[in-house]
Amino acid sequence: MARPQKHVFVCAQGRPAGHPRGSCVDKGCKPVGDEFFRQWQARNLFSTVSVAQTSCLGPCQAGPSVVVYPEGVMYTNVQVEDVNEIFEKHLIGGEVVERLRAPADVW
Amino acid sequence: MARPQKHVFVCAQGRPAGHPRGSCVDKGCKPVGDEFFRQWQARNLFSTVSVAQTSCLGPCQAGPSVVVYPEGVMYTNVQVEDVNEIFEKHLIGGEVVERLRAPADVW
Repeated sequence: MARPQKHVFVCAQGRPAGHPRGSCVDKGCKPVGDEFFRQWQARNLFSTVSVAQTSCLGPCQAGPSVVVYPEGVMYTNVQVEDVNEIFEKHLIGGEVVERLRAPADVW
Repeated sequence: MARPQKHVFVCAQGRPAGHPRGSCVDKGCKPVGDEFFRQWQARNLFSTVSVAQTSCLGPCQAGPSVVVYPEGVMYTNVQVEDVNEIFEKHLIGGEVVERLRAPADVW
């Protein structure tokens, strides 16, 4: 795998039931990560995009959280149905999806 | 957690015994990740650096693999005893540790 133009990191952090911070798993990050992997493969973007799941990215209260590097754009509250737009507009088109961008006090 | 100046991703990918690609777990990535977390906490770098473990970063044959964004520098064959130098020189000092940098055909 060569160095990607866009590297997508999807939080996959879980925590025990009742933990005060909650987690992205509680908020549904697993199907979001699955959808990133599914579309990455279906679109055959291996030469330009990489996708990985990660431990905690920070803003648990606003998860599921996704960060795209090298530009360092974080998306919060990402749902399965948002993934297509992130691919089309950002990962392929190079334009940030402003409606999903983390607020300045979060990232 | 605010947006970090340096975001470190340490591969934590395992694969079943005998898998032809091997994995960073086979090559000792878990203690390397633990050492990144330990030093991150001991150095109290929460306001400038973030550390996360990830699924596969790509160059399994050269693991343990670590990537630092936003600059997109990949380190390969990272050992526990290399982590101090990555903190001192790169994450704090801003200078890439050239001896650990992935070769151009890898990243």
